Amino acid sequence: MPEFRHDPVQKRWVIIAIERGKRPDDFKEKNNDIPHVEFCPFCEGNEDKTPNEIFAIREKGTKANEPGWKIRVIPNKFPALTSSGDLNREGLGIYDVMNGVGAHEVIVETTQHDLHMGDMPLDHLFQITKIYRDRILSLMENEILRYVLIFKNHGKTAGASLEHPHTQIIATPITPLTIAQELTSSREHYLAKERCLFCDILTQELHVPERIVIQTPRFVVLAPYASRFPFECWLLPRFHSHDFTRMEDDELREFATVLKEVLYRLKVCLGDPPYNFMLHTAPNPHPRPGKPDYWSTLEYDYHWHIEIIPRVTRVAGFEWGTGFYINPTPPEIACKYLKQVELPQV
Amino acid sequence: MPEFRHDPVQKRWVIIAIERGKRPDDFKEKNNDIPHVEFCPFCEGNEDKTPNEIFAIREKGTKANEPGWKIRVIPNKFPALTSSGDLNREGLGIYDVMNGVGAHEVIVETTQHDLHMGDMPLDHLFQITKIYRDRILSLMENEILRYVLIFKNHGKTAGASLEHPHTQIIATPITPLTIAQELTSSREHYLAKERCLFCDILTQELHVPERIVIQTPRFVVLAPYASRFPFECWLLPRFHSHDFTRMEDDELREFATVLKEVLYRLKVCLGDPPYNFMLHTAPNPHPRPGKPDYWSTLEYDYHWHIEIIPRVTRVAGFEWGTGFYINPTPPEIACKYLKQVELPQV
Repeated sequence: MPEFRHDPVQKRWVIIAIERGKRPDDFKEKNNDIPHVEFCPFCEGNEDKTPNEIFAIREKGTKANEPGWKIRVIPNKFPALTSSGDLNREGLGIYDVMNGVGAHEVIVETTQHDLHMGDMPLDHLFQITKIYRDRILSLMENEILRYVLIFKNHGKTAGASLEHPHTQIIATPITPLTIAQELTSSREHYLAKERCLFCDILTQELHVPERIVIQTPRFVVLAPYASRFPFECWLLPRFHSHDFTRMEDDELREFATVLKEVLYRLKVCLGDPPYNFMLHTAPNPHPRPGKPDYWSTLEYDYHWHIEIIPRVTRVAGFEWGTGFYINPTPPEIACKYLKQVELPQV
Repeated sequence: MPEFRHDPVQKRWVIIAIERGKRPDDFKEKNNDIPHVEFCPFCEGNEDKTPNEIFAIREKGTKANEPGWKIRVIPNKFPALTSSGDLNREGLGIYDVMNGVGAHEVIVETTQHDLHMGDMPLDHLFQITKIYRDRILSLMENEILRYVLIFKNHGKTAGASLEHPHTQIIATPITPLTIAQELTSSREHYLAKERCLFCDILTQELHVPERIVIQTPRFVVLAPYASRFPFECWLLPRFHSHDFTRMEDDELREFATVLKEVLYRLKVCLGDPPYNFMLHTAPNPHPRPGKPDYWSTLEYDYHWHIEIIPRVTRVAGFEWGTGFYINPTPPEIACKYLKQVELPQV
């Protein structure tokens, strides 16, 4: 019999189809399907086809916007939000509107056009995660930007329009609904119990580890109890930490090993599936110009984490109409398959 | 400059990319792409390949589960929820679980394997909408089922696994999050203003009709101000009505003409795009066994409607991470193109 399972973070029910229990091979047809193109604006040598770089890790002696880089941060050429102007908040009868002010950047992760993040050298991925931290810190100096989202679209079905490995950053002047719900759930849990909601989830999961995919001294990857999608994974610090940008270098290095490992396991298990990952972390702690921000007052009860969702099923009318999800692979089964993947010898 | 627009129903911000202003032709590549198969279990003559029918409109003298039908309602062969058993609600530490009890039915809309709903004879579509009404009423006699969702997935990208025209029905023992949010928004608006939220939206939209796609004496189709998706359309009654099942036959017939017209306009404008539609209506008014249901006490402030979402853009990491949507076609532009479609002579 299928089960309804409740996610205590998003307060959302998910339908887990226990019997259907789809296996990894059932999803392998839907692999990464961006058509290969001759010209790639993110490849080395094509720096003049992108906006001027914001930051880059480069070989000594090379110049900005020329070859010689290892990792490059650039503004998105077709930004969803613009970086200048006033918000001009306004009511229009029953509606509300404001200007699309924000930031939209791209981290070109490597010069190698088709290198999967799960196959990157550890030190390289560590450098990328340091850039995640530094770009959030830098963008949050602008108090108008209340939230900075780091996310990755890999594969056409996951929304990527370019094959070359890249991460995106969008900073918004509003704390997003998804994060607001998580901040609220965390605060309510803390007020009721004086404990962190995510720490409580971790304690319960580590006690009976059927959904624990990876465990290191400071991090855990788990297949969440109420997974919306087959092979969904969450990566969390085992210690309480609400803000990704407070990570020290040695913590970030361990984080990079775990991120690399879970992406590698998903790649091998599902045959390089399209996927998204999203960093969920605390909103901008700096007060808004002239007044404190409600959402940032909730942030100490929060617990940052990364959600990774392979895009091997389609979201259809039922999900859009209800907010329920139907997941044909129970997380316990997904976890078992992910743990069976053999890691390469280092 | 892009705009943030706020949807007063779902309390959700959407980013409308004013400049990008994508036109219909930009979306036409992503058309309906279910591979054509030789065998179709929904075609006439294959009745023994589906579960036994629940209801059918048939030629006189023909028998159940044999040829001779016009429209056929059957249980889903691979149901997401099962129709028998107890809910067995239970807490599991920090989580909650209950059995996946509910109903999952399919309405095979016609014997014609590739007839688009926008091209159906009006009287035939009217019969289908009467079945929508009757199946909701019938399923709601079971007080365990708190909500009945009527929805349609057309095209592979929209989640359809079979090409043959069909609508799905899923009845759940919980009022869905999406509907709960709309009931709450409607109640809050009514308490503040003693007016219906949706009626207020209609009044404002009809005053400056740049987003009105279709208008008849009793119905309106509009491109919502904070559309999540390009060419998103909502179909609403102009008179206040919270419950689709209270529609009289003459109202249903007018509704069918409007549904047919909007689907036809979308089909011609975007080149038969994949789409979903979802009927949003009041939850089950019958009390739960032994106690009233909170959500059904809110239903008189609600206003039923149908949401139609063409699936021509991909939901990516930003949307999953934030709950914001990025829509590259402002609804005013979408409305203009939809109105330009010439209707066939009747």
